[in-house]
Amino acid sequence: MQQRRIETRLEAALPRPEVAPVRLHQAMRYAVLGGGKRVRPLLAFAAGECTRADPQRVATAGAAVELIHAYSLIHDDLPCMDNDVLRRGKPTCHVEFDEATALLAGDALQSLAFQLLAEERLSDDPSRQLEMVKLLARASGSRGMAGGQALDLAAVGTTLSVPELENMHIHKTGALIRAATLLGAHCGTAVAASELGALDHFAKCIGLAFQVIDDLLDAEGTTATLGKTAGKDADQGKPTYVSALGNSEARKLARELHRDALGALDDLGERALRLRQLADFVVLRQF
Amino acid sequence: MQQRRIETRLEAALPRPEVAPVRLHQAMRYAVLGGGKRVRPLLAFAAGECTRADPQRVATAGAAVELIHAYSLIHDDLPCMDNDVLRRGKPTCHVEFDEATALLAGDALQSLAFQLLAEERLSDDPSRQLEMVKLLARASGSRGMAGGQALDLAAVGTTLSVPELENMHIHKTGALIRAATLLGAHCGTAVAASELGALDHFAKCIGLAFQVIDDLLDAEGTTATLGKTAGKDADQGKPTYVSALGNSEARKLARELHRDALGALDDLGERALRLRQLADFVVLRQF
Repeated sequence: MQQRRIETRLEAALPRPEVAPVRLHQAMRYAVLGGGKRVRPLLAFAAGECTRADPQRVATAGAAVELIHAYSLIHDDLPCMDNDVLRRGKPTCHVEFDEATALLAGDALQSLAFQLLAEERLSDDPSRQLEMVKLLARASGSRGMAGGQALDLAAVGTTLSVPELENMHIHKTGALIRAATLLGAHCGTAVAASELGALDHFAKCIGLAFQVIDDLLDAEGTTATLGKTAGKDADQGKPTYVSALGNSEARKLARELHRDALGALDDLGERALRLRQLADFVVLRQF
Repeated sequence: MQQRRIETRLEAALPRPEVAPVRLHQAMRYAVLGGGKRVRPLLAFAAGECTRADPQRVATAGAAVELIHAYSLIHDDLPCMDNDVLRRGKPTCHVEFDEATALLAGDALQSLAFQLLAEERLSDDPSRQLEMVKLLARASGSRGMAGGQALDLAAVGTTLSVPELENMHIHKTGALIRAATLLGAHCGTAVAASELGALDHFAKCIGLAFQVIDDLLDAEGTTATLGKTAGKDADQGKPTYVSALGNSEARKLARELHRDALGALDDLGERALRLRQLADFVVLRQF
């Protein structure tokens, strides 16, 4: 239901494939539609349930976050970054199209994310909506996701301690996961600072757990089951939770983060049911 | 005076070079500071004078547009795009740093532009400020600047008619020049639709004139006087106003656009003095 709502919203937000410049719009749609677990929009929906948010508003906010995520994957796969050829079981955007088109498609998806956040009413209070724009911009930028990617680049071939790994992932994937959760909540009734803090702590733990599981899957999975190149972290000399801790300790860390995440939701009661389900989904997808 | 105001605002908006991730922040600062004519912020200031806008607000809006412009230059210079090594008399960002860092610096500058537009009060009416975010996002995206770059890529090695050239440039450079002008105006008192229309038409003409002059300078100038590689349009097989019209007709077109631009300002009277001066600067810089 919410999966379909987010696919519909993404489809509607993207320019039609026959609109000029056709190749650019086709590349944008190729990279966004028909794949992806939509974890970030699902987090937005689940957080929105805590604040009785209108699902249409949450769909738009979640789509904006997903567009940022999709652009980051396109750029991350480029030859000057991870140089990957497979994503979501399909050729990466620059393989299917070309490097220049992939670069521009990523750039345009970032612009489109901010356009979405600004062009529809997402909060009854326009000042709060400006806060939402700021929140996504910070999460995407040099002290958020893009900064995390820079830390990731710098880490290739080095050994990172667990706190250093945590710092990298809090930025690279965590910033956007936290933004998705908070934006979903902001679409609803005004939230107390303490509740926002709880949601943020939940999202921080889930983001890290998500990364630990990703590292485990990359180390243990196959290209066929992952839909992306397996074992590439080790091949590229990237430090991971598995290389820092070993499989067994990494699994234990994921369980601890899962428990911490659920603990953060204690005061939210029944409203946080779906957030708890998502936490289970993120952590249990490996086993 | 306004030059200094915009440099100060850009400097303050950019993360300090010693803040982690250091290399990324250094690349962002390298690409933005210490160069550039700042035509877009100057247009914002001049348009802001038509609406009695607070110069501090205009500086922030102008800085946001300049950050988008700077990111587009970084990405445009990358090997998969124009593959250029010289910009504003210095090595391009990917030459000075590396391709991956340049890619991320561009990405992060785009995020920072939207952060700037959202985090300070730029209009007494937050709904209008959301409109400003939407305006910049549209101007930057696939039906604005990024779309124009895609048209530019597709045009390499082909011949374009003057209307086709105009369509390309209206997107590639025109969208951002129009956005700068309108954002500057939006920082001030509410503007009548007819005045916004006049400012938009002025900016459209000036944007095209700017491009015609750029084509003339590229064909006639030297690398030393331009601060970027001269003659690269012809070398790269790019259609230009000079290749479509010849030097003499291209000059004539620039003069016509200049006249049209000034005509659009007729009803604005004395308030548009600085816009007229800028129009002169843009067109006369060749002669």
